[in-house]
Parts: sequence; structure tokens; C-alpha cells
Amino acid sequence: MTSLLLTGIGSLVTNDPARGDLLGEVQDAALVIDGSKVGWVGSRRDAPAADAALDLGGRAVIPGFVDSHSHLVFAGDRSEEFEARMTGTPYSAGGIRTTVAATRAATDEQLTANVSRLVTEMRRQGTTTVEIKSGYGLTVADEARALAIAGQFTDETTYLGAHVVPSEYADDPAGYVELVTGPMLDAAAKHSRWIDVFVERGAFDADQGRAILESGIARGIQARVHANQLGEGPGVQLACELGAAAADHCTYLTDADIDALASTGVVAGLLPAIEFSTRSPYPDARRLIDAGVTVALATDCNPGSGYSSSMPFCIALAVREMHLTPAEALWSATAGGAASLRRTDVGHLTPGARADLVVLDAPSHLHLSYRPGVPLVSQTFIAGRPV
Amino acid sequence: MTSLLLTGIGSLVTNDPARGDLLGEVQDAALVIDGSKVGWVGSRRDAPAADAALDLGGRAVIPGFVDSHSHLVFAGDRSEEFEARMTGTPYSAGGIRTTVAATRAATDEQLTANVSRLVTEMRRQGTTTVEIKSGYGLTVADEARALAIAGQFTDETTYLGAHVVPSEYADDPAGYVELVTGPMLDAAAKHSRWIDVFVERGAFDADQGRAILESGIARGIQARVHANQLGEGPGVQLACELGAAAADHCTYLTDADIDALASTGVVAGLLPAIEFSTRSPYPDARRLIDAGVTVALATDCNPGSGYSSSMPFCIALAVREMHLTPAEALWSATAGGAASLRRTDVGHLTPGARADLVVLDAPSHLHLSYRPGVPLVSQTFIAGRPV
Repeated sequence: MTSLLLTGIGSLVTNDPARGDLLGEVQDAALVIDGSKVGWVGSRRDAPAADAALDLGGRAVIPGFVDSHSHLVFAGDRSEEFEARMTGTPYSAGGIRTTVAATRAATDEQLTANVSRLVTEMRRQGTTTVEIKSGYGLTVADEARALAIAGQFTDETTYLGAHVVPSEYADDPAGYVELVTGPMLDAAAKHSRWIDVFVERGAFDADQGRAILESGIARGIQARVHANQLGEGPGVQLACELGAAAADHCTYLTDADIDALASTGVVAGLLPAIEFSTRSPYPDARRLIDAGVTVALATDCNPGSGYSSSMPFCIALAVREMHLTPAEALWSATAGGAASLRRTDVGHLTPGARADLVVLDAPSHLHLSYRPGVPLVSQTFIAGRPV
Repeated sequence: MTSLLLTGIGSLVTNDPARGDLLGEVQDAALVIDGSKVGWVGSRRDAPAADAALDLGGRAVIPGFVDSHSHLVFAGDRSEEFEARMTGTPYSAGGIRTTVAATRAATDEQLTANVSRLVTEMRRQGTTTVEIKSGYGLTVADEARALAIAGQFTDETTYLGAHVVPSEYADDPAGYVELVTGPMLDAAAKHSRWIDVFVERGAFDADQGRAILESGIARGIQARVHANQLGEGPGVQLACELGAAAADHCTYLTDADIDALASTGVVAGLLPAIEFSTRSPYPDARRLIDAGVTVALATDCNPGSGYSSSMPFCIALAVREMHLTPAEALWSATAGGAASLRRTDVGHLTPGARADLVVLDAPSHLHLSYRPGVPLVSQTFIAGRPV
């Protein structure tokens, strides 16, 4: 096992609560990577020796982004739907079926190449852990295929057979729920760490959602929920009732929803690139944080409602549009994402953590929102290795 | 002179009005670069032979971005001011003085290195022409120095001695106008293609602005104006009265302002990254376009009110926040910028134009707004050469 000393770090974000401030920042810092893990963190002048050293010339280092919500296994392009939406056609969940048709028609190689392209793009933008959902197959074989492909790129695979009721079950949604909780789950289970359901008008109601999530929980697959995106609804309460790891979207919440999130510890996943690309109101992130809810920021990268793979873009939106401080936004995009995925090995840079980190072409993390749209990621390390 | 055939272009934006649609798009296209210029444009199947060929595999090609408004000659960083603003401290023009102090204290080498870094960053994001202003020196020597440095990177240099009244003239603004129109202009003239003034409460009024611009015009230096950014005011009318090339910002306009822009042909420069980073309302771009005003999109990259160097980010904001169509936004970021700078050789890809073009990692230009925040520029060519 070799060690690498990163020195000349202008500002280092550790997310270590023991350091006092939210981000556990260290100025004029150094960090030692021992093999795949963080070995040492501190002030540059106290740095130990290592097998090799790299002077970062004052650049900032942050934990790699943990993107806890994405839909990368798909084929096709909905840029024309986007263009129409920007000139007045509202977004509806029904558009998902367009991608389902294209995905079913694609070969394994085409789907794999598309995921590979997008994961590479994410890594170039500093994402070191990404959750990937199925949900554009919606047959037993196509969901299992999507999850097997996702599993080539991440451990954080999510079975989302319950993304929308496919056209062929339009007259028999109960039959589709039976499929999702029966044969489709049987085929998906071995590839899935998570099970998810889109609880929304036009998708699944609370009873359907409960049946679907409970079928997964009974198999040892943990729950997460698409909740309250397009209007108030039962998604958040269902997530809290079942002890899901996260309720994602949270665009329309009642006081009772916020109380439930705060008291159960279910993470609220906020996906502001979706509000950007659907021209919708943003979630009230301040109300959530002020109520003590744990917030994760994620891209929700998908070809329909929002096709950004950029965590820095989400941070800039979180600051500008959702009134998070830059520190809160970065925390939510790293430690918050890790909480959403119930991971303790990522989302922070303390000794023993996986050495997932990002070197910025900037002196501090503030530049992620101070310089919106600018590609500031100089280098991404995953498990101690540059990618 | 060697020629290069770019073929396999999924979609080519020419901005050629003879092709009918706003962007003069050609599907399944090819383009020949002859030396520094565009030699031929058309359908791939009609492409002529060339000395070399490059197959772009279905990627889109667009004209290079023409960023008609930036302030790159400065030192220091105002990320903490940005952070304070995002948590409630409003933006004021007075913050410019912070950067003036840092810029005066910097060496030529430091300033040059900073411009070089930012121009490189812009080129990586597809900008092939950039206007650069002075305005953080505000002494005879410091303004001349800033313009000489800017001139190492662009022909589009703008003398902005009238950015704000510097502290040492706080009690004598009339004396500062005399300096700007006298000895400072003498020193700046040989380095300047443009003269500009910030007409705004807290900066310069209409009479001061007129005196400043007329002093430049009398020397053959063309006028452009910072107008109507923080409130309604006389800037746009002054730009129209004097035949300026552009009135930039245009955030607060009266009906009479819009009529004046439309009837005089003064280009309205819209800088939405500034509204993003100052959390201000966006200009009503639709009203301008529907009235027949020529609109340019630009970054206004500067360390105070908005530090984005990204034209793709401005396009995404223009679509989402200002209701431009994706085609209008791209036109404004290319042909519109060229109009703002009174350039006929850039901003389009027709035979004879300078071969300034961008290859996108995307099948069409729609992805610039469909995929916000994602670095999609695969390759930038300036005057026929990859950069």
C-alpha cells in the first residue's frame, strides 16, 4: 500500500463535525491518502511523510459529491420535449413512456455505453458515488437488465419498476402492481440495494406505493420514495411510515410532512435541477433545514424532467434559488447524499474514510456557487486513485 | 494554406439567414475550413475533398460564442461578498472599489496571468471572441495598463475609466470626469476600440455619461453603455442618442426605452448571470425580441456582481428565466454578440467567415439548455485552429 501526500491545499473541506463548523474546514491544509483511504488530515505544517507528494498550489479540496438520485439507464433523447416545455407545454409524468419505448428497443451494448458516458461525465464533474435507478424497462426482463447494467457502475442500484404504469397496463394498474411486487421483484432483487416508487398523481397512490415498498422490505431491500414532486400528496408520509432512507423531490410539503421528516430522520432529497428544467417552483429548503431535517442535494439526471449531471450546478441553484448557504449546499451534496444512501464511508474526509475527493481550480469551495456554470473540477480521486 | 473537412456533423448551426430558419441549421452536415476561414458549408453528401478530414461522429457544430461584455483585468476575489449577498446583503456598485484597490496593488504579471487563466477557461467553454473592459484601475497609469494587458488577448478592448468614481475623487466627481475625458483618455485611446460608462445611481449620471462618451467618439472610439441595471434610468436613451453599439444590462426598461432601442438598432446586451448571482429579477427579453430589438447574450464575467465565464450557462438561463427559445438564445450568444461588437466576420459559419466554431458533445445545440451546467464543449476552433 502506497501513500500520497496532497499538500498546498488552500482550503480543505472535511465535513468532520469534530472540527466545529459545518464543513470542518482546514485552511492551508494537507491530506494523506493511504491506499484507498484517507490516512491523515490536518494543517500543512504538521503533515507526515509519505511515499509521494503532490503540491496543489493553493487549490481547494472537497469530498467527492454523492449523487443520491439518478436515472442513467435509458436510451433516446427528449430535447424536443424540453424545447416544447420551455415554450409552454407543461411537464407530466406521462412523458416517461417515451423513454420506456426507446429503452426497450435498445441493445444491452447501447444502454451500457450510455451509462458509461454519463458516469464518466459525472466523475469529471466531481461525483464519486452515484445512485442509479431502473424504471425505463417496466417488464421483468427489461428491469432486470437495467439493474444488471447499473450494477456494473455502482453499488447503489435502485429497483424502480414502479416508475409509471406502462401503456400495456393502462387499463389494469392493479395487475401492474402485482407484477412489480411479484415476478419483476424476483428478477430484480439480486441486483438491487434499494426499492423506490413514484408516488404521484398519474403514477402510484399511497396504497400501491406501500404494497410495492413492503414487498421489497420483506426481501431485505431498503426503501426510498419519489415524493411530493408535482403537488402535495402522501409520498413523504409513506416514506416516514415505512422508515425509508429518503423522500426525494419534496417540492410541495405540508407542515405535517416536515414534522414527519424531522421526527423520523428520513432524508429529504432536493433535486433543484428538475425545478430548473421544468420551470417549477423550488422546494423550501430553508424551512426543512430550520426544522432539523437532513437535506441531500442530487441531480436526478434523467432525459425527461432534467438532464443535468452536474452537482456543482445543483449547488449553485441551491444557494441562489433555495437560500442554502454555500456551506449548507456543499454539505448536502456530500455528507447529505451519504446520509441519503446510509453510507458512512463516503461524504467526508476524515481518517478511515474512502479517499473520494475533488481538487477544485479555485481557492475555496465558495467558488462552486460564486462561479456558476464554470467547470471547476481539476481532478477527481475515487478510492485514492485519480479518474 | 491547408484545408480540413469536418464531416459527420449531426447538426450544424450556420446562422445563415439565407437558409430560412433563425439558426440556418443543416442536418447531417459537413464544413470545410480553408486556412483561417470557412471555405464551404453544406450537406455531408455534397462535401468537396480537402487536405484532411475529421469525422465528428454525429456531434453538433455551432459558431463560437461571442461574449460581448466582460471585465477580466482585475486582481483579488470577492467570494465572501458573494456569500454575504446570498444571505441577505444587497449588491451595490460600490463594491467595485474593493477590486480597484486589489488591482492597483497587483503586478503586471499577476494581472496578465489572471486574464490568461480566464480567457483559457472561456475558450474551453466555447468562447472565441471576447470583449474585455478596463475599469478597475481608475488612474491614468492603471487604466492604460489594464487596456494594454487586455489587448494581448483580444481586439475588443473597452476603456471603462468611468466604471465608478474612485474613493480619492469621492468629493470631486466632476474632477474625475475631467480626468476620464482628458489625460486618462489620452493614455487609453491607443489601446481602446470602445469607450463605455456605467450610467447608474451610485456611478455616473446622464450628463456625465454623455460627456465621457462624446470625448471618446471625438477620438474615433466607438461607444457602448452600462445601462439600466439596478433601476430605470437614462442609460438606454443616452446610448440611443449617441448611436452606441450596445446598451448592456437592460434589466429595468420603460416602453420608451424599448422603442428607442428598436428604432435606433442599438443592441440590447442581456447578462443573465448577473441577475443569477445578485438574485435580481431578469430582464424581459421576450418584450425586447417581440419589439424587434437585437439581443446579445454575454457573461459580464467580473469578480463582483457575477463571476461566471460560461456562455452555455447564460444560454440555459436565457431559456429558463427569460423565455428565449433555445434557438434565440444561441443566436444571441453568437450572431447577437457579433452585432453588439459590430463584427461581420464572426458569429456565423458561412463561407468567408472566420473559422471560429465549437464541437459539442451532443447531437444538437438544444443540449446547451437541455443539459444545464454540463460541460458539453468537446473542441473549440479559433481562426481554423483547435485551441
